[in-house]
Amino acid sequence: MTDKKPPVRRSEKSRQAILTAARELVAEYGFAKLTIEAIAARAGVGKQTIYRWWTSKGAVVLDSLIGDTPNGAALPDTGDLATDLREVMRLTAAEMASPEIQASTRAMNVAVQTDPALAEVYRERYLGPALASARDRLASAREAGQVAADADLEVAAEVLFGAIYYRWSLGLGPLDDAYADAVVRLVASGLR
Amino acid sequence: MTDKKPPVRRSEKSRQAILTAARELVAEYGFAKLTIEAIAARAGVGKQTIYRWWTSKGAVVLDSLIGDTPNGAALPDTGDLATDLREVMRLTAAEMASPEIQASTRAMNVAVQTDPALAEVYRERYLGPALASARDRLASAREAGQVAADADLEVAAEVLFGAIYYRWSLGLGPLDDAYADAVVRLVASGLR
Repeated sequence: MTDKKPPVRRSEKSRQAILTAARELVAEYGFAKLTIEAIAARAGVGKQTIYRWWTSKGAVVLDSLIGDTPNGAALPDTGDLATDLREVMRLTAAEMASPEIQASTRAMNVAVQTDPALAEVYRERYLGPALASARDRLASAREAGQVAADADLEVAAEVLFGAIYYRWSLGLGPLDDAYADAVVRLVASGLR
Repeated sequence: MTDKKPPVRRSEKSRQAILTAARELVAEYGFAKLTIEAIAARAGVGKQTIYRWWTSKGAVVLDSLIGDTPNGAALPDTGDLATDLREVMRLTAAEMASPEIQASTRAMNVAVQTDPALAEVYRERYLGPALASARDRLASAREAGQVAADADLEVAAEVLFGAIYYRWSLGLGPLDDAYADAVVRLVASGLR
């Protein structure tokens, strides 16, 4: 009996090479100047290989940036809503403030705002699941009696992420723990 | 004694013609395709006349779009914080949802996010005053005992406008009175 690992499928290798190339190139040159040709060249594949999986450069870059982000993962549930929201909002703020991915995430944000098809992909794959996870945690807090029975959980989830996004998009101030905590404090208190 | 109005100064007429041209052109062609030359041609002035007042096309367009918006105007003060915030948030949501200015405001929003100098002008002239007015109203509500003594008013103002901006930027849902009211309800309740 041989103990061989199954061979990595060639197409999966190409796919990963394309995602890596897209991530590197958007960081180096920005989204606007990026072309499908450049991604194909760096990944060592033909353009057609990229179009087999993605419909536009925006879609490739989106996947390259958020592909391994655990969106839609359940929020922590320690039993205390404010504690759990603080953890998630601090993490979100720190991620968005991270200098390493700043160029890419800002380019992506602009692309999403100028390309309705890309925006739809972004909402479906990324924002929707993230907001749904937050709503789920708020719902379990409501069951535990930490949230008023008639609170609007959908709006509360948007308000939480919106506060981080607003400050980040428009450069209104530092995205630090203090800001994340203050937002959570206001929202958690409003939900009671 | 003659009853003559003072003559409108020629430079003020040029200035207004430039602002009108910029507003029209950005609505017709979008911000990206707009040039200083096109604004000058439509306004019937030379490029140098534009550069006398503005440093970039972004700065002209910004002024053309928000010049007559009463930012920094005091919020209404009926004595009831939630009532006043609802009025302002409903107005803000309706303005941002307005189909007539959608193309211009979205183009402007993208320009602000890709041009740090323009972003600074935008924060100074527009966002800063709007947020300060909201904070002032929250402070008067605090004096009236409607807001907790230790509430963070700066964060509360950002959370209010951020919720509208987030939904608008990323197309997360309708910008209607119901949304504005739900945001105000959450924040006003959180501030008590």
